[in-house]
Amino acid sequence: MATDFFADIPTIRYEGPDSENELAYRFYDKNRVVLGKTMEEHLRFAACFWHTFCWPGSDVFGGGTFNRPWHAGANDSASAAQKREVAFDFFSKLDIPYYCFHDVDVMADAQGVAEHRRYFAEAVDHLEKLQASSGRKLLWGTANLFSHPRFAAGGATNPDPEVYAFGAMQVRDALEATHRLGGANYVLWGGREGYETLLNTNMKRELDNLGRFLSLVVEHKHKIGFNGTILIEPKPHEPTKHQYDFDTATVYGFLKAYGLENEVKVNIEANHATLAGHTFEHEIATAGALGIFGSIDANRGDHQNGWDTDQFPNSVEELTLAVLEIIRAGGFTTGGFNFDAKVRRQSMDAVDLFHGHVGGIDVVAKGLLNAAALIEDGRLDAIKSERYAGWDGAFGQQIGGLDLAGIADLAEQKAIDPKPRSGRQERIENIVNRIVHSGK
Amino acid sequence: MATDFFADIPTIRYEGPDSENELAYRFYDKNRVVLGKTMEEHLRFAACFWHTFCWPGSDVFGGGTFNRPWHAGANDSASAAQKREVAFDFFSKLDIPYYCFHDVDVMADAQGVAEHRRYFAEAVDHLEKLQASSGRKLLWGTANLFSHPRFAAGGATNPDPEVYAFGAMQVRDALEATHRLGGANYVLWGGREGYETLLNTNMKRELDNLGRFLSLVVEHKHKIGFNGTILIEPKPHEPTKHQYDFDTATVYGFLKAYGLENEVKVNIEANHATLAGHTFEHEIATAGALGIFGSIDANRGDHQNGWDTDQFPNSVEELTLAVLEIIRAGGFTTGGFNFDAKVRRQSMDAVDLFHGHVGGIDVVAKGLLNAAALIEDGRLDAIKSERYAGWDGAFGQQIGGLDLAGIADLAEQKAIDPKPRSGRQERIENIVNRIVHSGK
Amino acid sequence: MATDFFADIPTIRYEGPDSENELAYRFYDKNRVVLGKTMEEHLRFAACFWHTFCWPGSDVFGGGTFNRPWHAGANDSASAAQKREVAFDFFSKLDIPYYCFHDVDVMADAQGVAEHRRYFAEAVDHLEKLQASSGRKLLWGTANLFSHPRFAAGGATNPDPEVYAFGAMQVRDALEATHRLGGANYVLWGGREGYETLLNTNMKRELDNLGRFLSLVVEHKHKIGFNGTILIEPKPHEPTKHQYDFDTATVYGFLKAYGLENEVKVNIEANHATLAGHTFEHEIATAGALGIFGSIDANRGDHQNGWDTDQFPNSVEELTLAVLEIIRAGGFTTGGFNFDAKVRRQSMDAVDLFHGHVGGIDVVAKGLLNAAALIEDGRLDAIKSERYAGWDGAFGQQIGGLDLAGIADLAEQKAIDPKPRSGRQERIENIVNRIVHSGK
Amino acid sequence: MATDFFADIPTIRYEGPDSENELAYRFYDKNRVVLGKTMEEHLRFAACFWHTFCWPGSDVFGGGTFNRPWHAGANDSASAAQKREVAFDFFSKLDIPYYCFHDVDVMADAQGVAEHRRYFAEAVDHLEKLQASSGRKLLWGTANLFSHPRFAAGGATNPDPEVYAFGAMQVRDALEATHRLGGANYVLWGGREGYETLLNTNMKRELDNLGRFLSLVVEHKHKIGFNGTILIEPKPHEPTKHQYDFDTATVYGFLKAYGLENEVKVNIEANHATLAGHTFEHEIATAGALGIFGSIDANRGDHQNGWDTDQFPNSVEELTLAVLEIIRAGGFTTGGFNFDAKVRRQSMDAVDLFHGHVGGIDVVAKGLLNAAALIEDGRLDAIKSERYAGWDGAFGQQIGGLDLAGIADLAEQKAIDPKPRSGRQERIENIVNRIVHSGK
Repeated sequence: MATDFFADIPTIRYEGPDSENELAYRFYDKNRVVLGKTMEEHLRFAACFWHTFCWPGSDVFGGGTFNRPWHAGANDSASAAQKREVAFDFFSKLDIPYYCFHDVDVMADAQGVAEHRRYFAEAVDHLEKLQASSGRKLLWGTANLFSHPRFAAGGATNPDPEVYAFGAMQVRDALEATHRLGGANYVLWGGREGYETLLNTNMKRELDNLGRFLSLVVEHKHKIGFNGTILIEPKPHEPTKHQYDFDTATVYGFLKAYGLENEVKVNIEANHATLAGHTFEHEIATAGALGIFGSIDANRGDHQNGWDTDQFPNSVEELTLAVLEIIRAGGFTTGGFNFDAKVRRQSMDAVDLFHGHVGGIDVVAKGLLNAAALIEDGRLDAIKSERYAGWDGAFGQQIGGLDLAGIADLAEQKAIDPKPRSGRQERIENIVNRIVHSGK
Repeated sequence: MATDFFADIPTIRYEGPDSENELAYRFYDKNRVVLGKTMEEHLRFAACFWHTFCWPGSDVFGGGTFNRPWHAGANDSASAAQKREVAFDFFSKLDIPYYCFHDVDVMADAQGVAEHRRYFAEAVDHLEKLQASSGRKLLWGTANLFSHPRFAAGGATNPDPEVYAFGAMQVRDALEATHRLGGANYVLWGGREGYETLLNTNMKRELDNLGRFLSLVVEHKHKIGFNGTILIEPKPHEPTKHQYDFDTATVYGFLKAYGLENEVKVNIEANHATLAGHTFEHEIATAGALGIFGSIDANRGDHQNGWDTDQFPNSVEELTLAVLEIIRAGGFTTGGFNFDAKVRRQSMDAVDLFHGHVGGIDVVAKGLLNAAALIEDGRLDAIKSERYAGWDGAFGQQIGGLDLAGIADLAEQKAIDPKPRSGRQERIENIVNRIVHSGK
Repeated sequence: MATDFFADIPTIRYEGPDSENELAYRFYDKNRVVLGKTMEEHLRFAACFWHTFCWPGSDVFGGGTFNRPWHAGANDSASAAQKREVAFDFFSKLDIPYYCFHDVDVMADAQGVAEHRRYFAEAVDHLEKLQASSGRKLLWGTANLFSHPRFAAGGATNPDPEVYAFGAMQVRDALEATHRLGGANYVLWGGREGYETLLNTNMKRELDNLGRFLSLVVEHKHKIGFNGTILIEPKPHEPTKHQYDFDTATVYGFLKAYGLENEVKVNIEANHATLAGHTFEHEIATAGALGIFGSIDANRGDHQNGWDTDQFPNSVEELTLAVLEIIRAGGFTTGGFNFDAKVRRQSMDAVDLFHGHVGGIDVVAKGLLNAAALIEDGRLDAIKSERYAGWDGAFGQQIGGLDLAGIADLAEQKAIDPKPRSGRQERIENIVNRIVHSGK
Repeated sequence: MATDFFADIPTIRYEGPDSENELAYRFYDKNRVVLGKTMEEHLRFAACFWHTFCWPGSDVFGGGTFNRPWHAGANDSASAAQKREVAFDFFSKLDIPYYCFHDVDVMADAQGVAEHRRYFAEAVDHLEKLQASSGRKLLWGTANLFSHPRFAAGGATNPDPEVYAFGAMQVRDALEATHRLGGANYVLWGGREGYETLLNTNMKRELDNLGRFLSLVVEHKHKIGFNGTILIEPKPHEPTKHQYDFDTATVYGFLKAYGLENEVKVNIEANHATLAGHTFEHEIATAGALGIFGSIDANRGDHQNGWDTDQFPNSVEELTLAVLEIIRAGGFTTGGFNFDAKVRRQSMDAVDLFHGHVGGIDVVAKGLLNAAALIEDGRLDAIKSERYAGWDGAFGQQIGGLDLAGIADLAEQKAIDPKPRSGRQERIENIVNRIVHSGK
């Protein structure tokens, strides 16, 4: 199966922190056991088709810089097949277990429903073979309901029911393909499920259409026997002015409104978290607290740039906090770390794709090692337990059984006069830093 | 009752658009009927105690500039009484029907539970008399669970149950006082209900404590027969790093999680909306779509400054869109427009308080006139109806009865190939501008 | 010359505020005299090639929706000619005096230097004829040093001197073409003159290269006898992580560093101002205070979206403040209001281009009428003069002649104890609103 | 001299990375030689009076939580003296060489000029003794021209010349005190040198007043023989809507406008950098490129909160990049790392002040070690040199001697067709991470 696009690149292997090989893992030792599971089982890495194999290196202000062979002409069946083969070479050379795709990422450009179905089926057949020959697995599939001009005003929230129906066709097929390919999850990212201006938008109608669409997807999942998880990926805006799946808390409310909170979880993207005004770890912790943590799209934004830069994660400090919250949320079940990240437009060489992924994988892996060390150290947990200890004590238990007036009366009877206590934030931050930067 | 603090200021009256009197209303004609109700009934204006009578004109980088007589010494019973009297002079001179307060705004500084209850009761007695003599009414009351050092780590989400109990005492008393004073609503703003760092925070425990607190408040409301509305005021952060009531959609999810979505609504503040990454009108439209629109805290932020500037609303264009969404959400029932706005620190003269409120009231009033004109014009509604017309047509109705596979199959049978249609955003924005700026 | 692309659209005329014609001006009466000049002379409107005729309606997440006839195949000489003809029809139908272009906007796609020069020359010949036949004039020309992949790392700041040389060729030709076409200004927007990461950037070397490039352009301007103004267009970032021409104050420092502050002015874009953390009017006022105000790129951003949305201006309130600062900066000499604005991706019909421009023109025109009314009203100027009156009084004059110790000693001798005075911000904002919304 | 406020805290010592003592340095080994200088000489740490000893733990939404003994009553001479003594105990126990202060931080509250001068002189006498007995030195002094109500509309930019004169008195005295105390620098932070609304502001007049004020300060410095550096501290806004010293590039333009670019440098604060839309390292690199790098105010902001949180630096990754740029800018001469950072309002115990500073010092120290390792590794410099190598080659040198037309002609003659080359951003970021996280 091997193509020659990455002929110069060896399979990436773990060589340990002392290695001077820039194309080796220093921290990602897939068989190393951490907190009772191998790193591979903990992190469940995936690479994606869209940024890594479809995007030509263009941006709003300029054309593609990448010049991949499969970008040379039309995206026909031959080009799509070449792209799929190169992609599987890549997944294999990274030696990570999973990959992810949108329907249109893997297939030839199609006109209309019939052609779409035919080209997609052709692609899925090939993917099935590539999976078998490479041993790589599908973390999740999804359908692209935002790139084609017909989706300019959204997919499931489109004012035109024909667009909704076109989207339903794509999602049905992508969900069934995901099932056939043994995918662990199916994702819905509402790229244009939002609005450009409230002035021409019927928000209630659009939300109800979106809620019904999701209900139909869940129903179909059960009908076909797909056991993977349905995931929604929150994002606050871009390309739309406002996207309905703004953040994890918003998605939770949406799921509750349509009775889907036990059926659907979230796929949290770091850059989407920061665009929504949150830290990455906040979104994970929120999903954990609400019981809807699912999977991760690993990348980072730029704190000075207000758009989705989708850079590779490069902060071990940040990933330490993120992985810590993932572990506290119970870790991944069906989810994993998918690199929804793209090399810079100036990084046009094939080797740059490896630099991006190898660096990102090691950043996440070191984050896991640090998070595990923090948990094993125990000080953070001890400080937190002590901080809330009053709720487990007599007074805390007592007020747990009283109504508002009862608690108020008790406060008066006891003439309570509670004093603030130090939250020890600086001490805690030092503990984290010491684990991260000197292991103590 | 009249004090002499505002002796030089006459009662503010409607004088029409041609008036050259800077202390007169040009648009707020309280008896003018618009869309079937008087402007007074539509807008239900209130002024607040905290910014207007308690805040001394300080900021993080400097001390108070205002030098009100009641700020001269300690905030004892006499000072508090003077402040209350001046405030009611102000409400009367503005000729608006409502006011709002936190418990600590209207009372002398207290040490401990017993003193708090005594001083607050003393203040409520006085407020009752002032209401009767002035004819002013209470839009909403609330309890301040964020200023005293004991609330440094929150009120209902405090790690210390004694602080929770102290807060319960305050809320019980403030809710009962609101009931006694005939208040139309009771508000909970979670000033410090959030976290400074996730590292010392048990988010699930805090959310559950907050949910239970709110449930107790609702239960107590029913027990005492209070018919007003319980309102939560969303804010994303400040003073905390993250506040749990981030925005309207988040509050909705929170209410659903604790089964309170039919009991509690939102008090939307313009500046909190923009801090959360939303427009003011977005938050109103969201509340309308979710069925939890309650009341408004009228102010504005500064788009270049990332904190709560709480300036007076001064954009008629913005208020036109906001009032339009209020009307579409059904208008106020118990809610109203409360000026949670403060004059600038450099605006230290008594007359500046009038400039701020008179200008703000007229901005909102002109917004109402414009919104009504847009509704009466009908073009916006017509464009929107036409945009979604497909959902009311045969195809839209047909897919309403099908499952995912049924819709997908239909799409294939019909070989649908929907084309994007213009959303006409620029045309619509022109219509709004022409109504706002030339009445056509 | 007329093409049939806009066959259904009549020439846009002034019909006054009472017109119900959506494709008529209500405020832009080009012959109306305001503050001693006609509105046409004040505002000097231009439309642009790039957003209006070159952009296909694509964004980062989806392809073009516009399907203009000249987008159907390759951008060859015939397509480019068709585009130029349609554009001039548009400028004529809007009845505005000016247009603007980048070299690559108006020409066929070229490979290499020779072809670039040949196709550009061909386009300029045609533009010259179109100007003559239509009576439209060139507000400014520019060269695009950011879209072609060769400019991925910048033009004048590129690490590769060959790219710098390619850019020099383009700028030389575009400047000479602008001169030949009677252009009033020549613009440099440093689209990729910045960095993606400091880690691979020699900032000092890049700034020096950029400074020298600008010096060469100024020198060439004088050599060829071009009397127009050289303009730099500030922008803080996007597509780059950081752009060297961050904002007006930064550009001023850059000009001073290379001795060009009397040779170059700024072309201020509203959306770039807000991306830089400033108001539009701030950037104009700063340019006025520093003596480098040149021209305007009229558009607006979205305060909730952190990228360059380039929407049409639609806030009369904002434009009132902006035009007020333009007048205070002396008004335009060679500059004008160029619509660097694009209709939304969903506004794909030809008529939407007219809705965008007609609305934008009227918003600016009403802003001018309001600004003139504020100046004629005189209250704002009077308040400001009074506020600084002390500096014109005895004490202000006295300290103007003393050194630091002299002033300090005087303060001590006079035992001065200055009190803060109200800045009357709310009163002033009310005056503005009353002029804007009721003319008083 | 020792007070008993910090009686329980030992002097903080270097114990190395393996220490389990939370109140020890793990990386800050003051005598360790790095790149030819000791760490103490490189970093020149200082602690500040204002956040650490003056601020009571208040914020906009609540009162002080700290209850330091010297906050108990009025800030009279005795309280001020106690505060000074405790502060010097602190500086000594941290074992850092420097401290910083505003005039009002160290003195009793004063009414009017005479009292101000008397109380300040009293404080300076005491500081001189404390310096002698403790061996601590003054990194910089400054005058507070923003907290007192008289400065509500600014100091040097105040519309009232008496306020300007009052400020001149304070600055004269503070500069002379700094000189007498052997201070290494004198800082001007323009806390309210900006505007709240352009509508009442004469920007040109204010800038000229500010420029003259700075000129007078420079003149006075020379007159009294002060050899330290005059520093301006950029900040974009807060408390003002806009501060004139927005960022480093803006300050540079301001200095050039008043001919002071060789007399004044910048004191860069991390949190001010991010509020201005820049990274911390960007501001340092810019100052280095422009030749005005002076000193550092070490702290951090919160990327999700839009105000000056002034937290302790806790990102080694960020400080690595910052220190790298400091070294590239030539390192400190008179400047140093001053902790303009405050513990959280919930961190009310004395020990929290140590956790904050010890952690911050170690973060900066580890950043220095990492930066030195990156420089010694050499790969970053090699990549950068190679990237710009063309400018040192024949073509680069050739175009260095040509004018615009000459370069354009050369491009044509040579038919150049430069291809973009990879900027290797991901590879470079990996190199940094490997040095930071595994030393390779």
